[in-house]
Amino acid sequence: MYRIITAEHSGFCFGVKRAINMIEEVSNRYSGEDIYTLGPIIHNPQTVERMKKKGVKVLNTAEEISSIESGVVILRTHGIEKHILDMLEKKDVTLIDATCPFVRKAQDYVVHLNNEGFPIIIIGEPNHPEVKALKSQIAEKVLVIAGKDDVVKIKNLESGRVGIVSQTTQNYEDFKSTINVLCDYFKELHIYNTICNATSLRQQAAVSLAKRADMMLIIGGYNSANTKRLYNLCRRIQERTYHIETIGNIEDSWFEDGIETIGIAAGASTPDWIIEDVKNYLKDK
Amino acid sequence: MYRIITAEHSGFCFGVKRAINMIEEVSNRYSGEDIYTLGPIIHNPQTVERMKKKGVKVLNTAEEISSIESGVVILRTHGIEKHILDMLEKKDVTLIDATCPFVRKAQDYVVHLNNEGFPIIIIGEPNHPEVKALKSQIAEKVLVIAGKDDVVKIKNLESGRVGIVSQTTQNYEDFKSTINVLCDYFKELHIYNTICNATSLRQQAAVSLAKRADMMLIIGGYNSANTKRLYNLCRRIQERTYHIETIGNIEDSWFEDGIETIGIAAGASTPDWIIEDVKNYLKDK
Repeated sequence: MYRIITAEHSGFCFGVKRAINMIEEVSNRYSGEDIYTLGPIIHNPQTVERMKKKGVKVLNTAEEISSIESGVVILRTHGIEKHILDMLEKKDVTLIDATCPFVRKAQDYVVHLNNEGFPIIIIGEPNHPEVKALKSQIAEKVLVIAGKDDVVKIKNLESGRVGIVSQTTQNYEDFKSTINVLCDYFKELHIYNTICNATSLRQQAAVSLAKRADMMLIIGGYNSANTKRLYNLCRRIQERTYHIETIGNIEDSWFEDGIETIGIAAGASTPDWIIEDVKNYLKDK
Repeated sequence: MYRIITAEHSGFCFGVKRAINMIEEVSNRYSGEDIYTLGPIIHNPQTVERMKKKGVKVLNTAEEISSIESGVVILRTHGIEKHILDMLEKKDVTLIDATCPFVRKAQDYVVHLNNEGFPIIIIGEPNHPEVKALKSQIAEKVLVIAGKDDVVKIKNLESGRVGIVSQTTQNYEDFKSTINVLCDYFKELHIYNTICNATSLRQQAAVSLAKRADMMLIIGGYNSANTKRLYNLCRRIQERTYHIETIGNIEDSWFEDGIETIGIAAGASTPDWIIEDVKNYLKDK
């Protein structure tokens, strides 16, 4: 019998809950019509699979998106690249915007900073859909840096001033250490810490649990950036930290002698039923 | 025979040189009139003494300032508190503004941030004349924090946004570590790094010299904040660091066995002739 503790603030955040509710509502209201999401609505394959069963199709490539002529298109939590939105607005489709309001706020700051004439740096993952959508809000070039080791790229920005926003699921300590380096390059910095509160709380709770657990299981999509970040943060503290999507990924060899307390944490896009599955599995272990 | 090395960027900075030249010019143009400075024009007693001999008087208290009816008043490098300037402007005196342009720039940022509705934090020494003048630019309350250990005071500021400026002679590393803590309190930070370039270069050169010298002499007014900061920075690296105003302050006991290289650094308000005095003294030692 293991002692199982689930970190506070695990699982669906406000933005994800809101998006899932919107899909439920849309699939009822528009039943019979074609319903699409642009990319997986959230980074959780199991949830996307459930949506598929309800008839919600995922459009992944620009070709797939441009090929549709009608139906309902749900814009995912991470937001959408502006040129794709422009294309969709010209079509005869119903658009449902499930962009997380915190992501939208970061987009607004990018537009505001650009209007004020600031070169812009986003602290985040260059290829993450949220960051791509963020960048696309303005025509001007936006520099994306993943962290403080990316500062070499900054040499191209020759202005004394800079506007800074963050991917909403960025780790706060990494954000701060990047700001610390950016101070060396600019005399005037307008910083918008757009890391969402839920992200910070979730990371703090997971890290705090990792300090007292003998093993940590981090549950969430392998394609989920915020889950991967949870994993990396806990891994720094507890070597026996494992990232799983479902109980199918749990390996017997992990349960070494001496393990008494198992900590569980889950990303913002991990549904409760998967967390419960893992808890039940561990109870019977 | 000691090896004597003087740190680069020691002595008069741009703003001080400019102020001293202005006084020379004023004392020629207005010879015969009463010439005053508000507080010591720079924080160097020996320079102030030389000015006195040329007939330039120092007004120190509000009473002394309000008592004058005519003459020429030179505003010192650190700037002047707004209510005192307002009082002087009502008098029949000629005002000569020797405020350092970099200090003036910081003042402009304070006014700008206030107009934009930002609560303002100054990173600097609360009782330094530059900081007092900076604060006085606006009617609203400005919080002054000396460094990261002062963050407890921030609790009174309940806004999510803040504007930050720095005393021009602040140490950059201390400035950065304060910013790092301020990030914990605010979501939106508009940072104006108003540390003047000369200060940064001077501090870097002194610290770099302290690493290879067997003893450091820091020359400058005991009332000079930037000289004291040079002393503190070098003292962290080389225990045998001493702050002197003139050769009169040098003690024989400092010249321990094993000392070969003596480093010299001087504050922004230290005149060349005092630096030369010290070098000549050491040459003969």
